[in-house]
Amino acid sequence: MHADLHWMSVALRQAEKGLYTTSPNPRVGCVVVDPDGQCVGQGYHHQAGQGHAEVMALAQAGERAKGATVYVTLEPCSHTGRTPPCADALIQAGVARVVAAMEDPNPQVSGAGLTRLANAGIDVLSGVLEAQARALNPGFIKRMTQGLPWVRVKLAAGLDGRTAMANGHSQWITGNAAREDVQRYRARSCAILTGSGTVLDDNPSLNVRLDGLPTLTSGQLRQPLRAVIDRRQRLSAQIPFFSLPGNTLRFHCGELHTPWPTGVGQHRLTHNDENGLFEALQHLAGQGMNEVWIEAGAQLSGCALKNQWADELILYIAPKLMGDDGRGLMGPMGLEHMDNAFQYQWQDVRQVGDDLRLTLRPQA
Amino acid sequence: MHADLHWMSVALRQAEKGLYTTSPNPRVGCVVVDPDGQCVGQGYHHQAGQGHAEVMALAQAGERAKGATVYVTLEPCSHTGRTPPCADALIQAGVARVVAAMEDPNPQVSGAGLTRLANAGIDVLSGVLEAQARALNPGFIKRMTQGLPWVRVKLAAGLDGRTAMANGHSQWITGNAAREDVQRYRARSCAILTGSGTVLDDNPSLNVRLDGLPTLTSGQLRQPLRAVIDRRQRLSAQIPFFSLPGNTLRFHCGELHTPWPTGVGQHRLTHNDENGLFEALQHLAGQGMNEVWIEAGAQLSGCALKNQWADELILYIAPKLMGDDGRGLMGPMGLEHMDNAFQYQWQDVRQVGDDLRLTLRPQA
Repeated sequence: MHADLHWMSVALRQAEKGLYTTSPNPRVGCVVVDPDGQCVGQGYHHQAGQGHAEVMALAQAGERAKGATVYVTLEPCSHTGRTPPCADALIQAGVARVVAAMEDPNPQVSGAGLTRLANAGIDVLSGVLEAQARALNPGFIKRMTQGLPWVRVKLAAGLDGRTAMANGHSQWITGNAAREDVQRYRARSCAILTGSGTVLDDNPSLNVRLDGLPTLTSGQLRQPLRAVIDRRQRLSAQIPFFSLPGNTLRFHCGELHTPWPTGVGQHRLTHNDENGLFEALQHLAGQGMNEVWIEAGAQLSGCALKNQWADELILYIAPKLMGDDGRGLMGPMGLEHMDNAFQYQWQDVRQVGDDLRLTLRPQA
Repeated sequence: MHADLHWMSVALRQAEKGLYTTSPNPRVGCVVVDPDGQCVGQGYHHQAGQGHAEVMALAQAGERAKGATVYVTLEPCSHTGRTPPCADALIQAGVARVVAAMEDPNPQVSGAGLTRLANAGIDVLSGVLEAQARALNPGFIKRMTQGLPWVRVKLAAGLDGRTAMANGHSQWITGNAAREDVQRYRARSCAILTGSGTVLDDNPSLNVRLDGLPTLTSGQLRQPLRAVIDRRQRLSAQIPFFSLPGNTLRFHCGELHTPWPTGVGQHRLTHNDENGLFEALQHLAGQGMNEVWIEAGAQLSGCALKNQWADELILYIAPKLMGDDGRGLMGPMGLEHMDNAFQYQWQDVRQVGDDLRLTLRPQA
């Protein structure tokens, strides 16, 4: 059992290497250990269309896979997608035992891979370091089980909860380290979602720059989809948001007022109210978006937070006071009693440069 | 030198025992170590009028003090106050060496005690663990050097910097553990300062209750002075604030509108504006108040913060969002540019129950 924990943790570290590149696929790592307890192969899934983690690790192991134990952070697939089923590859390689951290989160195939292995006489075990494996793929799991992406709302404020001065001046609340930290969150996300007000007021690029991502080469850098909710069709195609490298998507209501370049994706929302955000999130999941990073103003952020459509709140707090006439985080909520406040649970608190990063999840 | 650090840390732990009881005197601890390296006496200053730390430790050591090294967290006094000079007591006890963590912060007597010891042929050393010793007595040091108390502003807010709902509802933002933590800060303070608005709106007791202070017996519990700034004379003597155990003091402007019971201290402020707060702080220092704990609304807290009259900001953050229509921390500041925000430096970040406690000091 101790060996299982050790080798699964090695497989998890392999999987982490795909943090920025595997979507819409999950991050998966694999280790092949021979009967003498020697690692004879390891690998991870790099990106969609390339080999799965098991294939990479088996290729490295070659003949030495025979009789080996294979550690994989997600149940091997049993279906033919862009690549053949990994379960078959494991059977053909003659491995003796397969240890998975978790079953496939897709309820339609969950357990099928392990069953196929067991039917072939391979010893199977699932659930080793499962919590750690689930934490690697919150978006993939939520999309498979709920048809929604994992949504993070990022906000940055002073100690007094202000995101900008009354006149909108906000550059920069946080320091360099926090802004580089944001780059890492953007880079691991499939889509960055904002509102038309933020685009009009701040003209943000919302793309990923390589600063602060030392492990990524420019060839590996995958620009997340830049999506904007523009219900009132206030934006025009000429702004940088739509012209920087990477795909863009605009959510709007009603007929298009003006023709748009084909390079800008368009999706018409049925709901011309707060539910439009939920509809947009569903649409993004339908497009294979696992993790969505909301970087927007108080209105859109507040909508995601108060409706509990945000799975995580990432709040950077700078050590400064801006005054109560500064702009707030989430808009007015009309609450009258403390019992009605939106309750969160701490996930993480850490210093990032001169700022503090708070990670919270809504209280269930 | 290693022994000096060890024994001074023991003396510091002795001094800490007086955290809640020594004011207006400083917290001081003392350890007597014989030539064989054995501790033969230790003690601390309990409260004003009782023996100083050196006297307590020498009494325990008795004859064994002869030839010993004495560690004391503050330079021994050389003047006769309510008790005879400790320097003389050390000389009479025949000690060989005196190690002090810091010199007396009172510029008029600083160094005199050590000089008197040296003149008597005792080996003296000062500055061992000085930063730790200074941290024990921020209020005493500031009062001696600047004629002002050490001022802490306590605030409690949600993640969005709101201290209450729009209607004023605020019970309770933070949990039990944070409120017990506040009791410890109140208990170590000489005075608790608030504003008339807080007294009228919230009817707070602002006294110290023993919950959360397991090391204190009720006999040791010293109620800090409860002071309120009531410039416009809106308060009456009948409210609980003035009738609970402990001394009270009311700062007002102009002639008293009505007669007040003699039990309530009165001090007339010259400044009927923000400078009244500074005047009140000076007055409190003049009354021997080392540490002042401001627990007030946005107006008084904001005044202390924006003028940098607060030495520390203690901000409890509860994991909840209250909405931008909730009340703010410090009132409007009229700032237009991020460079003008009030900058702080982190001193401490820690979880207190379900809440986070941030400790900051103004950036110099």
